[in-house]
Formats: sequence, C-alpha cells, structure tokens
Amino acid sequence: MQNEKHNIFIYGSGNMAWALASNFSRVGISLAGIAGRNTEAVKELCHRLVVEHCEDILTQSKEGDIVFLAVNDDALSELNESLSLPGRLVLHTSGSVDISAISAISEHIGVFYPMERLIKFQQISLKTSPLCIEVGSQDWDRIIYGLANAISDKVFRLSSLQRKHLHIAAVFVSNFTTYMLSAGNDLLKKYDLPETILDSLVKTTFEGLTTQNASFRQTGPAKRADINIIKEHINLLQKDFPELSDTYRILSESILNRYKSGQN
Amino acid sequence: MQNEKHNIFIYGSGNMAWALASNFSRVGISLAGIAGRNTEAVKELCHRLVVEHCEDILTQSKEGDIVFLAVNDDALSELNESLSLPGRLVLHTSGSVDISAISAISEHIGVFYPMERLIKFQQISLKTSPLCIEVGSQDWDRIIYGLANAISDKVFRLSSLQRKHLHIAAVFVSNFTTYMLSAGNDLLKKYDLPETILDSLVKTTFEGLTTQNASFRQTGPAKRADINIIKEHINLLQKDFPELSDTYRILSESILNRYKSGQN
Repeated sequence: MQNEKHNIFIYGSGNMAWALASNFSRVGISLAGIAGRNTEAVKELCHRLVVEHCEDILTQSKEGDIVFLAVNDDALSELNESLSLPGRLVLHTSGSVDISAISAISEHIGVFYPMERLIKFQQISLKTSPLCIEVGSQDWDRIIYGLANAISDKVFRLSSLQRKHLHIAAVFVSNFTTYMLSAGNDLLKKYDLPETILDSLVKTTFEGLTTQNASFRQTGPAKRADINIIKEHINLLQKDFPELSDTYRILSESILNRYKSGQN
Repeated sequence: MQNEKHNIFIYGSGNMAWALASNFSRVGISLAGIAGRNTEAVKELCHRLVVEHCEDILTQSKEGDIVFLAVNDDALSELNESLSLPGRLVLHTSGSVDISAISAISEHIGVFYPMERLIKFQQISLKTSPLCIEVGSQDWDRIIYGLANAISDKVFRLSSLQRKHLHIAAVFVSNFTTYMLSAGNDLLKKYDLPETILDSLVKTTFEGLTTQNASFRQTGPAKRADINIIKEHINLLQKDFPELSDTYRILSESILNRYKSGQN
C-alpha cells in the first residue's frame, strides 16, 4: 500500500460508507476525509471514525488521490453528471452498476464491491467477505487490488456483467430465502399455528446448506413430483394469499422441470 | 405408555418408517413388527432394527394394537381401499392428508406427523422436532399423546386443515429456500463465477434467521423498491433462465407489495 502517496476519500454516509471506512480503519489505513450530501450523517460518520469532514471533495482531494463513491445506484448517475474529479481514481461500490456509469467523473475509474450484508454502525469485518474489483485502466490495478486485499482475503476480479449476474444470484440466495421465511410466518399467523413450530425445520434445513450442495438436498412435493399435493397447496393458498399461490406454482414448476429427468 | 397392552406395528419401509422405528427404539419402545409391500426394504429395516418382519399385518396384529401407516400420500388412498384392520388404532404419518383418508381401514384412526427432514438410515432424533397429532376419537387421545411425547418434546395437536397449512409453510421455508440456493448455483456455473463466492453471504443470511425475524431482516432491490435494478435483473435472466426470470418477477412483486407502505 502506498497510502502516503494516494489519499483516500469516501463520498457517502450510509451502510457502505460505514463498512468501508470502519474496515480500512481496522487494518490501519487512514482516510483523508468523508464527503456527501447528507451533511449530518457525514458528520456523525466522521466523528465516530475520527476522520475529517470533507466539505468539497474536489478542492480537498488532489490528482492521484482515491475517491470511493459509496452511494446508492441511482445517486451514481446523478454524480456522473454533477461531479468532476479529474486525475483522481474514482471507484463505485455497487454490485449492479456498470463501471462505465461513472466515466464522466474521471478518466481513472474502477469498482470496489464487497458482497456482504452491511449495517451501519455494526462492526462487520469484511475479512472473509468476497470483494469484487474491476479496473478501468491497468495502471491502477495493483493499487486497487492492494486496497481490497488489505481488508478481505477473498478478492475476485470480475467484469461488470459477471458482477451483475453475481448480484442476481445473491438476490436468490439471500433476499428471496429471507422472504420465504416471512411467507412461512404469514401462514403460521393467519392459521393460528404456533409461531415457533417451524424453527427446528429451518435450523436443520440451513445447517451446512451451500449453493454447491443445495441441489442434492432438495426435497418436497415438487422434487418427488407429487402433483396432487402441489395442486392442493396452490388451491389452498389462492383465497388468502394469491401472490404466494402464484409463487408456489412457479417454483414448483421450476423444480419439477429441473428434476424430471432425474438429474441434479 | 401401556406398551404391553398395545403392540405397535409399522406399515412401510421408507424414510418415515425408519425414523419412527429408530426413534421408538431409541426410547425403549419395542415394535411388534414391520410390514409393507417392498419386501426387501422391509426385511432390511427389520434386520437393522431387530424387529420381526410381518408378512400379513392383519393376521399378525390383534384388536387394540396400533398400526402406523408410514407410506407416501398416494399409497394411503390405495391402502384405504385394500387394507382392513378393524379394532386396531391406525395412524397415518402424512403432513398433507386429511385424517378421513384412512377411515375405511379402521374405526379408530389418527395422525402422527413428525415435521422433520427424514433420511433413511441416518440417526435423526425427533426429540426437538415438532410432532403433530390428531385423533379421530378421544378414547385414543392419551395413548397417541403418550407415544408422541415419548419421542418428541414438541407435540402439537393440530386439525387436518391446520396441518395442511403448516405443510405449505414448511414447503416455503425448507424446500423453496433450498431451491433458491440451487438457482444461485446455476447462475454461478453458467457465468463462470467462483463456485464458493456466495458461501459467506449464505452463512450470514441464515445465521439466526427464523420465521419470526425474517421480515425485519429483509433486504435487497425489492425491499428498497429499486425498480430499475429489478427490471434489469428480470431482463438479464430472460434469455438463459426464463423460469428464474418469472420467479424473480413474482417474488419481487410480492416483496414490493408487502413493504410498500413501510410495514413489516
């Protein structure tokens, strides 16, 4: 790390800004400043992390410095129109946005995307979290890799399209699984079933479950092509939970198709 | 337990027969015999559990005995037409089938449904698994409850309809979550992404996740109503994974609807 040559700034004050700043701090990489539109949130972040509050990121950074844009996806396109940081290395931190989305801000761009559930003010180490990087020009490759490797043991170089596909996969394995449990809870509530009755099933389902072994561990009516049960479940859901009924149908069809010829 | 008065038989030789027999054995309840159509599988089960192989369940059982029908749902309706066990207490073990489905077999019927992932020849204790019972006549309530309570600390009395709703909820929280991880794996493979790249996300997602807290832990594009990302993901999936594209759309719509007014 040539930290003395490249001052590091963060633009943003949300979960991602917190995660990056606290993880850099954890490994002894000091930040030159944090900037952002939400002045109060920026001030609080700076106060907690003992970092300078940066009012104007253009005048307070110089050429050769590094600026992380830790903002949400919509804000990136606004920044690409309003922010100009020539000569700085500018990195966005989004899983879903193309590297080119920030190309008007600087001629030196990159992506720095830690794939982790980030919650502001929680001490979440990124050491074992996948950190996906992409560089716009090879000149900066070593610097970006070094920064990533300083906070994570799992650095992956992915293209923008690969990162998008990864993000989609992440939605399935994290967001949608969480939603399946909410749906289960809704059913328990609606039909006066004990609220903890599914806890042990959830626990045994998730124990040691990974993307690699999930297919071998598939069970249930659709896996065993139990069409009568599937139809009955879809009908039972129709009245009180029409959306869950559609969800049940389409997931069962997918599972039936996947396993119909006995493959995994 | 009045085990000496009521001999216990199991009809079936699959996962459920194994689970019941091995769990009764674990708590010192001995079986009088195991019967079933798959003679080889029945013999192996009997051999492993040191139980008598029962060739004809009608002649080998007597009035007042207990017979568990540990067969799949379709087989239950066949048994209801072909099997006659007057005077015996006959219990089916299905999550989805009404108690009345076995009413032609005996005038004494009930349901004994352990809600657990059961795998033949694995030693899976049902001690902490929910065990759902239903009795056709109150005369047998104490006996059924006693048998259930002997192998599980979590005995619930549920009606047939409640048990069906519980089974649907179980499909969501166990079968469909498992499928979400298979889908993630398919995406990783298709787009040449490292096969372990989602492991840490899966781990942090599932840590401490229950049906009760799932709604509070919901994150992702649909939770934050990020319509642009949702549309892009649906489009990206359309070509290679049309079914996952439909799944993504319908789940995102459900999540959007659920959280649109800010409720949990």
